[in-house]
Amino acid sequence: MVSSFDGVFAPICTPFDTRGEVNVEALRQNMARYRAAGLTGYVVSGTTGEAPLLSKDEKRMMYGCVAEMAGDSVLIAGTASESVRETVALIEAAAELKYAAALVLTPSFYKVQMLRAETQVAFFRAVADASPLPVLIYNFPQMTGVDLPVEVVRELSEHENIAGIKESSGDIDKAGRLIFALPKGFDVLIGASPKFHACLCLGATGGILAGANILPRSSQTIYERYRAGDVAGSLALQQKVAEVTGIGARYGIQGVKYAMDLKGFYGGPSRLPLMPLGEGQRAEIEALVRDVDDELSDV
Amino acid sequence: MVSSFDGVFAPICTPFDTRGEVNVEALRQNMARYRAAGLTGYVVSGTTGEAPLLSKDEKRMMYGCVAEMAGDSVLIAGTASESVRETVALIEAAAELKYAAALVLTPSFYKVQMLRAETQVAFFRAVADASPLPVLIYNFPQMTGVDLPVEVVRELSEHENIAGIKESSGDIDKAGRLIFALPKGFDVLIGASPKFHACLCLGATGGILAGANILPRSSQTIYERYRAGDVAGSLALQQKVAEVTGIGARYGIQGVKYAMDLKGFYGGPSRLPLMPLGEGQRAEIEALVRDVDDELSDV
Amino acid sequence: MVSSFDGVFAPICTPFDTRGEVNVEALRQNMARYRAAGLTGYVVSGTTGEAPLLSKDEKRMMYGCVAEMAGDSVLIAGTASESVRETVALIEAAAELKYAAALVLTPSFYKVQMLRAETQVAFFRAVADASPLPVLIYNFPQMTGVDLPVEVVRELSEHENIAGIKESSGDIDKAGRLIFALPKGFDVLIGASPKFHACLCLGATGGILAGANILPRSSQTIYERYRAGDVAGSLALQQKVAEVTGIGARYGIQGVKYAMDLKGFYGGPSRLPLMPLGEGQRAEIEALVRDVDDELSDV
Amino acid sequence: MVSSFDGVFAPICTPFDTRGEVNVEALRQNMARYRAAGLTGYVVSGTTGEAPLLSKDEKRMMYGCVAEMAGDSVLIAGTASESVRETVALIEAAAELKYAAALVLTPSFYKVQMLRAETQVAFFRAVADASPLPVLIYNFPQMTGVDLPVEVVRELSEHENIAGIKESSGDIDKAGRLIFALPKGFDVLIGASPKFHACLCLGATGGILAGANILPRSSQTIYERYRAGDVAGSLALQQKVAEVTGIGARYGIQGVKYAMDLKGFYGGPSRLPLMPLGEGQRAEIEALVRDVDDELSDV
Repeated sequence: MVSSFDGVFAPICTPFDTRGEVNVEALRQNMARYRAAGLTGYVVSGTTGEAPLLSKDEKRMMYGCVAEMAGDSVLIAGTASESVRETVALIEAAAELKYAAALVLTPSFYKVQMLRAETQVAFFRAVADASPLPVLIYNFPQMTGVDLPVEVVRELSEHENIAGIKESSGDIDKAGRLIFALPKGFDVLIGASPKFHACLCLGATGGILAGANILPRSSQTIYERYRAGDVAGSLALQQKVAEVTGIGARYGIQGVKYAMDLKGFYGGPSRLPLMPLGEGQRAEIEALVRDVDDELSDV
Repeated sequence: MVSSFDGVFAPICTPFDTRGEVNVEALRQNMARYRAAGLTGYVVSGTTGEAPLLSKDEKRMMYGCVAEMAGDSVLIAGTASESVRETVALIEAAAELKYAAALVLTPSFYKVQMLRAETQVAFFRAVADASPLPVLIYNFPQMTGVDLPVEVVRELSEHENIAGIKESSGDIDKAGRLIFALPKGFDVLIGASPKFHACLCLGATGGILAGANILPRSSQTIYERYRAGDVAGSLALQQKVAEVTGIGARYGIQGVKYAMDLKGFYGGPSRLPLMPLGEGQRAEIEALVRDVDDELSDV
Repeated sequence: MVSSFDGVFAPICTPFDTRGEVNVEALRQNMARYRAAGLTGYVVSGTTGEAPLLSKDEKRMMYGCVAEMAGDSVLIAGTASESVRETVALIEAAAELKYAAALVLTPSFYKVQMLRAETQVAFFRAVADASPLPVLIYNFPQMTGVDLPVEVVRELSEHENIAGIKESSGDIDKAGRLIFALPKGFDVLIGASPKFHACLCLGATGGILAGANILPRSSQTIYERYRAGDVAGSLALQQKVAEVTGIGARYGIQGVKYAMDLKGFYGGPSRLPLMPLGEGQRAEIEALVRDVDDELSDV
Repeated sequence: MVSSFDGVFAPICTPFDTRGEVNVEALRQNMARYRAAGLTGYVVSGTTGEAPLLSKDEKRMMYGCVAEMAGDSVLIAGTASESVRETVALIEAAAELKYAAALVLTPSFYKVQMLRAETQVAFFRAVADASPLPVLIYNFPQMTGVDLPVEVVRELSEHENIAGIKESSGDIDKAGRLIFALPKGFDVLIGASPKFHACLCLGATGGILAGANILPRSSQTIYERYRAGDVAGSLALQQKVAEVTGIGARYGIQGVKYAMDLKGFYGGPSRLPLMPLGEGQRAEIEALVRDVDDELSDV
């Protein structure tokens, strides 16, 4: 273990203009508002950042832009790739900037192999051995179809260059068992916004929350209340915002971006094959967002 | 519909040397033997070709090498990618050579969207509109977690630049329903070696069979017997070779490569994160392969 | 092995009157028409017979009534129960009549235990040891959540009082692997009407087909054509009737009963908690049934 | 809503002697110790009570015996059955004794119908309309394959004779969403021992905990600590006992009974098809139980 990632991180969206190119000015505006909300830090070129639809050059550009805009916030680079070669190349690019860690997704296309614990361990070790940055394991079985078992993560936690895990399975019980099995100081960051409070009750370190793109202040406040011993207040706020912060899981990235638009951020379009929302979906999101503001006055 | 892909295709492996670089001479030797076995054609840079672990330049090189070595065989280019942009770029590269079609995998990382029929249709239409080659849809839900429904495929079959589907789900009943629902002339190529005979009984056009990398002559003969009306002979041969041709589904690509080594082809190593087989797995594969030769003398 | 169950069996419905009591006269009318259609035999008090909603006395009455009405047809008694005690008690009742076998379902409530091969084997052995009738294993994982593996069935096939299996998983590939693994003479009866033809192509002995309640003549004819070497004719008829014979899997028993009503049999109501169909479902079934008659004139 | 079921309930085992008959004296001894541990109440003839393997007469006998032994404890009758008729008959038997509620399981054999919300609602309404006791819905999808959706439970909560739900899915997030969706006063009792603490953090009323058969004092104490505001103490005790209280989910009822034997209760044998544990399983359970006593001295 090498570092500590307490708090709330937004896995930021990559803003595109109408031609599908990265809109740096929109990124700047969003970042300014996130910083004002007091978020702990950011993940750049992660799942919510549409990394699989970015070229390698675009990922590097995103690393650089956010590094310039983030002040003292803690930065984590998304480096998902099927191969060890490509993953390490991306980490090296982030390491030249002021990134604190790399978020490394389990490869998943070759299910037969990647579902074997031995292959999982070997992959993360190969990356961590070569990585100039501390590694955060990224477990996201809804997308990958591969769920890293508790015992694999525990074994990997002994590697001196692996600092923690982003657990995005949404399985609260598994998060609890992970936390119990892992050594103190190994960070367990939750990647399932509506389940953040429950996981804090089980000992999670913090969260990397897609919902923090939409409601950064509320996301941070759930954390702060829980840390201050206000369990009831943390639960009440979590219940209030669960549906809005769960928009990503239900509607995808385009849902997150549309909710951001409604909240005064720049969301904008996604890249194909991600399609614009239908009219019905937009209306549903509008209804969800309408009643929840991020100023927290009524909770 | 624009073309016809009857017969048996091998989705060839990409041979690597011990440093992990493409071994062109080994490829040449394998291709010579496959051609002698009478295979209908080949898929280059597909799943069995470890395409997700190849760079774009390496995929292009593989397209070129096989085109030189394949004589009159029918060639299909694997072009799997998460984005429309990248998919089309790969098809354009293959179109400059003598490829007959592009095999286009459903993007799958963004499950929420890609599980919607509307997004699936839009993706394949966008690719087919832009593609200089006929498109074969590639459905492989075990890897992608996204199973294209019959109705989506039927709708896509109306596009004049979509010629067929490689159905690799291994769901024989679904294959039968697909075949029944699709217009005559729209090819349904089965991508599940042990289920080839059953799908021929339900009307499949042919197969893209990982098992044909190991037992090319037997794979082609199942097809020939069925076409000649010898249903019992086709079934008997299928039963005999089912376990060997199913090695890929059970042991992954490294299993296919090891069985190829045992049969006198060049299999060789895979790239990380794909790991070498364990000793126990090698022994199992040796036992499976030992009793099945490809000369067909005893069936 | 003790017996042979080639052919097509209808797992008959239990007809109820409007007060929910068994309607014996309706049963008599249905049986007369089934016999005219030439079905091989019948299963009494099976899944389609709503056995879980019948009292023990009602099951015994059904055994007796059908025995009187069935002439020389082959009769099989459904005896599903969670416990060995109760299963054997039902078999003993059927053995006093002219039943040829008992159809014994895997217990399933206690999943942790019943998913273990050892418990599965022990259950069927305990029943077969005590049973005065030959036992047919009944595998129906869609209902039970427990799928008997090929190896368990193979091991059970060595028991001298176990004669065959009704394989209702609908997994055509598994049916093929079962057939290949089992000794000649051990019957594999398919319990998935729309997949009957495909399973015959893989060597199935016959079928226990819910669809034969609706289309007895067509169900029997698929079998006869295949046995006569007319594979294309068997497939064509299977494709024609697949949706109608699949009504049970899609709409439940009430769907089968409604389709029977439409075809001139007595279907009638089910018992609670099975509900009457909604208007939309009835219209769908009417559309399916309308275009398919059982006289086979157009195939 | 008609009643309130706060606290911790043990779903007691049915003790059998070596011939498989109910052992009333063993039951008496167990009950005396449970009462000394301060448990709130008991479920009789539930899943852990092997109800599916008991005859109707035996269930009635168990209702009666426990009623005599339970003093002022709150009693709940397990009444699981596939049909409305049988379910109501069992409730009527319990109502003649001093039972506070009936625990009514979702029928599940007919999956096509029982997976429809409309049928689920109709079943529970039909039972509740006829029931002389308040009804507790029993959701146990691991056994039934049917998971009652939040919206169905919410709709049923409006029925004046439905008092609460035993939610045994083990899905902590679903429990939280249920609690949030249901009216105050509608009891949500958790039926997943290792997840009890997490669900209390989300607002659960109490638990019906198989683990309370083994560690009654610890199970009750998790509840008491949480209610007293000691969240950290509740979590620490939950973590300590999670593996022992999870024995039922991992090893089945025979595992619970063996752990009871080790803790000085009468566990004894189960009925077929439930098999005795293997030697390896017994050793695992011994290891789990060895380090956890129920006196709580070290937590």
